[in-house]
Amino acid sequence: MNEINEKRFNSYIESVNDALEKYRELFSGENAVYQKKVVDAMWYSLSAGGKRIRPVLVQEFCRISGGSPSDCIAAASAVEMIHTFSLIHDDLPCMDDDDLRRGKPSCHKQFGEAIALLAGDALENTAFEIISDDSNISDEKKVRIIRELSSATGVFGMIGGQTIDMENIKGAVFSDSKLLSMYSMKTSALISASCRIGCICAGDYDGAARASEYGENLGTAFQIIDDILDIISTEDNLGKTAGSDEKSGKCTYAALHGIDDSVKQARKLSDAAKKALDGFEDTDFLLELTDMLLRRKK
Amino acid sequence: MNEINEKRFNSYIESVNDALEKYRELFSGENAVYQKKVVDAMWYSLSAGGKRIRPVLVQEFCRISGGSPSDCIAAASAVEMIHTFSLIHDDLPCMDDDDLRRGKPSCHKQFGEAIALLAGDALENTAFEIISDDSNISDEKKVRIIRELSSATGVFGMIGGQTIDMENIKGAVFSDSKLLSMYSMKTSALISASCRIGCICAGDYDGAARASEYGENLGTAFQIIDDILDIISTEDNLGKTAGSDEKSGKCTYAALHGIDDSVKQARKLSDAAKKALDGFEDTDFLLELTDMLLRRKK
Repeated sequence: MNEINEKRFNSYIESVNDALEKYRELFSGENAVYQKKVVDAMWYSLSAGGKRIRPVLVQEFCRISGGSPSDCIAAASAVEMIHTFSLIHDDLPCMDDDDLRRGKPSCHKQFGEAIALLAGDALENTAFEIISDDSNISDEKKVRIIRELSSATGVFGMIGGQTIDMENIKGAVFSDSKLLSMYSMKTSALISASCRIGCICAGDYDGAARASEYGENLGTAFQIIDDILDIISTEDNLGKTAGSDEKSGKCTYAALHGIDDSVKQARKLSDAAKKALDGFEDTDFLLELTDMLLRRKK
Repeated sequence: MNEINEKRFNSYIESVNDALEKYRELFSGENAVYQKKVVDAMWYSLSAGGKRIRPVLVQEFCRISGGSPSDCIAAASAVEMIHTFSLIHDDLPCMDDDDLRRGKPSCHKQFGEAIALLAGDALENTAFEIISDDSNISDEKKVRIIRELSSATGVFGMIGGQTIDMENIKGAVFSDSKLLSMYSMKTSALISASCRIGCICAGDYDGAARASEYGENLGTAFQIIDDILDIISTEDNLGKTAGSDEKSGKCTYAALHGIDDSVKQARKLSDAAKKALDGFEDTDFLLELTDMLLRRKK
């Protein structure tokens, strides 16, 4: 990334981290003494150093659609809460059973299963709570954001995708259609919603429709690269268990098509994402971000 | 209950059951083939024959506040979804580990732990989705409802209460203050929110504030009676494991104060709830409902 874009990227991350820290204070204090453990678990996972791609997308789509930072900071935080809730539940023994996340013990390894379950539940809920409570945006925007966020999270989004992934056990062979359907729901839905939500925060409802195509393509490329990295990277580098897909015999795009074709497909999707930005102005940052995500090593 | 009230009670239950069935259709169909299992698990638990007290409260507070049935049917369904999500997660092995719920195998016994976890997650999310998507009420009402519902569900509500309950293990002795704090969050918060939400659906925002006192008292009485029934009732009657509190050595109001004092306390709270209805008109149904819940045998 060039210097301007890198500075912007870092300032977005700083903004969402600051906002999340302020929300922590709202959920602490003398009324949260008895249930402090769940708040600790929520913020343990929230502050474990994720890539923050989704809140970056919210903030940048808001900016290029003419919105101000305060229009979107609650939504950017909410999207990261939903993402983190999904990681906490995904790591649980009854799901992927993963001990490591973002280079640290996963939430249930640190706090026990019950508290991790509740921390995920609370983050899912708190995402909607902070949007409904935000004093910066209109009720119309709030409702549109909640509609996008809940729809991307639910049966036709992330949770639907995770349901399909539960069938993805040793020796499973998914058709391309089923696999891409799973990727679209499990990964692209929330990424794509982040882009739309950024536009909505700025009041650009037409832009929201156009942003979908970018997010859909970016999200699928993102997931294919995740699969590739799971094969070729190391645990130290990823900050989570490497080789887990192969070990568990999961069907992934990379497993079905091989590394070379997967890299080609990710590049193709990345190009399609960039092309979808044509309808927007001032897209330099997003073009670079798209390339950066394609080339990422973790 | 007299005939008129009983008829009303049954019509509320019928309405929410019909609405939930219609929502099921929205989450089925050709776009929900791959993830059908999670939808089946959600509605397995939703339609397992709960008491539906919360959606009844939403509908009745809406009615006495001057609203029409269509103003509150989405909210009534959403409240039941949140309640059912909490039961599914509460029954999981890492929480209360209960095999039986509403006289049937609990969700994870029927669908496995992973799908039960996801079904709970999806119900929590879908509650907010159906409110944001409702075509009958204004954005202002939607935002107010979502604020009430999320706040009653989260860190200062149900999930906060469940967190405290996780410390409630063999031999735990809670102070009255901690125990009542737990009851207030775990049980009263959502019951009280249901009453407020009913008023909000009707546009009576002042009524919402007054409804809290009714809901708080009713909710605590409800939980104390639950404790008593857990001691004196049978599994056949309750439709869930009886004697589970004593078996797990949990601290409850009944365990701390004995059955007689608990019955007295429940009656006192019930009276306080009825008194709080003074600010409303046409409260005959709620007065009878309050008595009925005090005398319930399951």
